[in-house]
Amino acid sequence: MTEDELVAAIRARVASVPAGRLLVGIGDDAAVWQPSRSNRSVITTDALVEGVHFTRDAMSAYDAGWRALASNLSDVAAMGARPVLATIALGFPAGTDPGWLLDCYDGIAALATQAGCAIAGGDLTRAPAITFAITVVGEVRASNLKRRNGARPGDVLALTGPLGASRAGLLLAVDRPDLAADPDLAGVLAAYRTPRPRLREGAWLGASRHVRAMMDTSDGLSTDLARLCAASGTGACLEDVPVAEGARRVAARSGDDPAAWALDGGEDFELLISVAKRGFGHLARRFRARFGGELVPIGRMTAGPGVRRADGTPVPSAGWDHLRGATQKERDSGRAP
Amino acid sequence: MTEDELVAAIRARVASVPAGRLLVGIGDDAAVWQPSRSNRSVITTDALVEGVHFTRDAMSAYDAGWRALASNLSDVAAMGARPVLATIALGFPAGTDPGWLLDCYDGIAALATQAGCAIAGGDLTRAPAITFAITVVGEVRASNLKRRNGARPGDVLALTGPLGASRAGLLLAVDRPDLAADPDLAGVLAAYRTPRPRLREGAWLGASRHVRAMMDTSDGLSTDLARLCAASGTGACLEDVPVAEGARRVAARSGDDPAAWALDGGEDFELLISVAKRGFGHLARRFRARFGGELVPIGRMTAGPGVRRADGTPVPSAGWDHLRGATQKERDSGRAP
Repeated sequence: MTEDELVAAIRARVASVPAGRLLVGIGDDAAVWQPSRSNRSVITTDALVEGVHFTRDAMSAYDAGWRALASNLSDVAAMGARPVLATIALGFPAGTDPGWLLDCYDGIAALATQAGCAIAGGDLTRAPAITFAITVVGEVRASNLKRRNGARPGDVLALTGPLGASRAGLLLAVDRPDLAADPDLAGVLAAYRTPRPRLREGAWLGASRHVRAMMDTSDGLSTDLARLCAASGTGACLEDVPVAEGARRVAARSGDDPAAWALDGGEDFELLISVAKRGFGHLARRFRARFGGELVPIGRMTAGPGVRRADGTPVPSAGWDHLRGATQKERDSGRAP
Repeated sequence: MTEDELVAAIRARVASVPAGRLLVGIGDDAAVWQPSRSNRSVITTDALVEGVHFTRDAMSAYDAGWRALASNLSDVAAMGARPVLATIALGFPAGTDPGWLLDCYDGIAALATQAGCAIAGGDLTRAPAITFAITVVGEVRASNLKRRNGARPGDVLALTGPLGASRAGLLLAVDRPDLAADPDLAGVLAAYRTPRPRLREGAWLGASRHVRAMMDTSDGLSTDLARLCAASGTGACLEDVPVAEGARRVAARSGDDPAAWALDGGEDFELLISVAKRGFGHLARRFRARFGGELVPIGRMTAGPGVRRADGTPVPSAGWDHLRGATQKERDSGRAP
């Protein structure tokens, strides 16, 4: 059974539970409910496990805390919402240095302060490995909520920035400490260790009626774009994948392919949007004026199913499968056990 | 460092994060924020870890799922709120039987349906042990919100029911399978395996202006009452601790002290309330008419600090400390490492 199959089976098991005031359930970046007539609240939860998502060798406590919160905030940004509060369930083995745990909270607090996200509480427990499960609640005006299911054939696909820097930073942090000290490569280390969720960009894009669908790229563009297509009942033609300059520099030194990092790497937390074609030029100009960076067009939504290159080649999804302990690409190629 | 000291240190680390629209943060059964003028939303998160909170030998998947949700719902009940939705972060080791995980969701879905709590989504991840981190959001009219800090000297302390059944059920499930088959003892096994959070009672008590403070008794009365006193700046005189009839029956067979189970056992999820003295009689009559069971008076709040018996003997807290891996009582008596 793959992770996607398990998620589908779980959805079937809980399908009998009445949805009540829940407007969006399992399957988007965050769930949505209605606290009052004109507002929507969103909620998202994410777990980070030592040995799975990070190791204490490759990542400081401060960075582990920052990243644990960042992935949730990115989900809130992807709905067009602003964060309100976070709760933190923290598990840790007997004998864990309390100083390490407190340093985590420094990282969480630093990002929470930047993001305007209150820390509402949490839970502490024994566990066999350090485990954060963070939940963030956000709020958004009903008319600004963006989901994954609104893309239409002909829409322009775009990203809030280039990809691959986080994956390049992971290489430096884990395998190439010799390169990690190079000041020219500091940017990719920061992209990996203390990624910046696109909260301002997400709230701004949420307010645009030209943006029909939005999600974040936390699991890698090839995986996330396939999910956007599946939710919207469309396909996509992927014409160009912008590669972060820092990822190019690292790849030139390590001999890796930076385009593969950009396509499959994940955790860059750029926002992926589907924009009505006639509105894209105006939106991109206003985005540049507002944020300095580019809204990068990467292709277009199509009526036919699946994600393909301009020459018709299929783009396989390469996300990590927690059940198999392998990426989908590894499974497809028979490299996984 | 004890767990309470770690929590205090964490509070200090995150004290610099602006609270925004958060009205109640760390330290109550749930955190509270304000989604609109007259309503309050509450949020609570709780983690259950295999080997710490349950074992697959002593508890079925269905029951583990039920209990994981129950402790969160109990926190929502203790605020006078009604649940709206739950998110579930689930970690599990490689090779875990997907059927076991799906059975967990059956338990979660069964209780969620009873409680009117939607399942909003979650996260799946690899982890060294099965780990649930469940977050529940609830809502309550602003005037009905009950906290821990409102008790006053002279108030009547009361419980929504007798204690000790869950602890007796734990004994049967883990150590005495020979007794577990006895139909006379089925009630305590159910109290342990599929506890019923006091949601209707909590919402009803929340609407009473005579109820000044409320919390649940998930960590054991001796520990939870000390927390109620600390939050309210009062002490308490504990005159009587009602023992569940099923706990008495088990203790008679096992040779244990049922009064100790009721005082320290925890996880009965009864609600502990502090009630204005002049209003208690009327409230108790209405409670009986509404719910059938008794609102059991157990003592009174006092001006002097600490929890004491009527004869002045101090009542030590006996809660589990996740950092030390020992109860406070064990630490006080030198039995802990």
